[in-house]
Amino acid sequence: MPPRFYAPDLDLARSDVTLPASESLHLTKVLRLRAGAEVEVFDGRGVLAHGTVRHASTSGVTITVDGVRAAQPEAPHPLAVCASLLKGDAMDAVVRDATVLGSTQIVPMITTRTNVPLARASSGRLHERWQRVAVAAAKQCGRARLPDIAAVQSASAAFSDTAWHAWQRRVLVEPSISTDPVRAAEGPSAGPLVLAFGPEGGWADVELDAARAAGWEAWSLGPFTLRAEHVTLAALSVVRYAWGG
Amino acid sequence: MPPRFYAPDLDLARSDVTLPASESLHLTKVLRLRAGAEVEVFDGRGVLAHGTVRHASTSGVTITVDGVRAAQPEAPHPLAVCASLLKGDAMDAVVRDATVLGSTQIVPMITTRTNVPLARASSGRLHERWQRVAVAAAKQCGRARLPDIAAVQSASAAFSDTAWHAWQRRVLVEPSISTDPVRAAEGPSAGPLVLAFGPEGGWADVELDAARAAGWEAWSLGPFTLRAEHVTLAALSVVRYAWGG
Repeated sequence: MPPRFYAPDLDLARSDVTLPASESLHLTKVLRLRAGAEVEVFDGRGVLAHGTVRHASTSGVTITVDGVRAAQPEAPHPLAVCASLLKGDAMDAVVRDATVLGSTQIVPMITTRTNVPLARASSGRLHERWQRVAVAAAKQCGRARLPDIAAVQSASAAFSDTAWHAWQRRVLVEPSISTDPVRAAEGPSAGPLVLAFGPEGGWADVELDAARAAGWEAWSLGPFTLRAEHVTLAALSVVRYAWGG
Repeated sequence: MPPRFYAPDLDLARSDVTLPASESLHLTKVLRLRAGAEVEVFDGRGVLAHGTVRHASTSGVTITVDGVRAAQPEAPHPLAVCASLLKGDAMDAVVRDATVLGSTQIVPMITTRTNVPLARASSGRLHERWQRVAVAAAKQCGRARLPDIAAVQSASAAFSDTAWHAWQRRVLVEPSISTDPVRAAEGPSAGPLVLAFGPEGGWADVELDAARAAGWEAWSLGPFTLRAEHVTLAALSVVRYAWGG
């Protein structure tokens, strides 16, 4: 498979596309490709295309597009992930897994027990970092669409956001074996789904109450305890399985 | 929750148990516990107990057991994981996830495309390492039973092992979107299940043929591409979901 690059300016009405600076650097400096090399480009909105490097320099790469390719199929329904920030680099795994498993939106949240310094959480650097992680994950797995990554917000703001009212199902994932404080969902049904994932220390009661008041259900993955950074992969795998291929 | 230690010599007919050397070191040197400290011990066969440190020195720790505790519930059916060795430390994640998600047996395999030096694969060091990983995972998640970890064997030996004939379902997990070479299973049914996971480069045709000949099915997780070291977590989450809590 030819190497794949993110080309947000891709427009199938034109024959050429220019890569962003970071992707140009990757093509020329890391992979050391030159004019004539065969590549794939994707626009982050669902289009994957085949092309040939026409001009390559560290200041910019231009690719001549010569055909559309089949991208990894998207999930059959919109799938949003509201996830508490996690310590260290663990949020990278959440963004990566959400991207690979087909999420369409990622909402990073500050919850009562989120254990990340506020200065770090509120800086724009994390957002840029997660964008890079999503691009890298999409390149690796062959997905041509990137999830929209929202600005960091409080869990209470995320739960009460009326935009979710149009979504068929709003579910808090509570992976511990503690009793389920909200009605246990029988599983993901077919339709737009938003899943919320808590921090390492779990949800606070006030959040479970607020979510219930806003019409969210709770869903336990089973009687086992996963680390917070593994819950997204586990839950989204179950959703994709339940939705079918 | 009190810190938890692996005590394979635990015998509820006796009041005391002595910890193995590595656990004694962990208790005294890492956690710096002394006589009188409250702890939990598990025997790796399903029993979790509460106790108090009676004697603590780096040469050995004795714990007085004073009651049984409820461990993480086991999965309702035997669940075996036959997994290709993976590069670097990635097999640790497979052992960890298999332990947390309730596998009862782990069979490390050499497949056609396994990319691990044979000297490394066949040394006993890896087996000891995986045992430590399983113990650490069990301590963290609260499981009181450890999976049996078999000696490394070839995939062809694992597939043709007649011991699996007593298992209700034998399934090769083939996570790529390539066409399914064997009959696609509709999902895990209720009963003893053995799942096989391939290496980074996927299964070779010869392995798919051999598995089919030995009565194995193939099962795709869906139209997305996970890294090899994430497939165990994804597949076992689906199995536990399908089996119910």
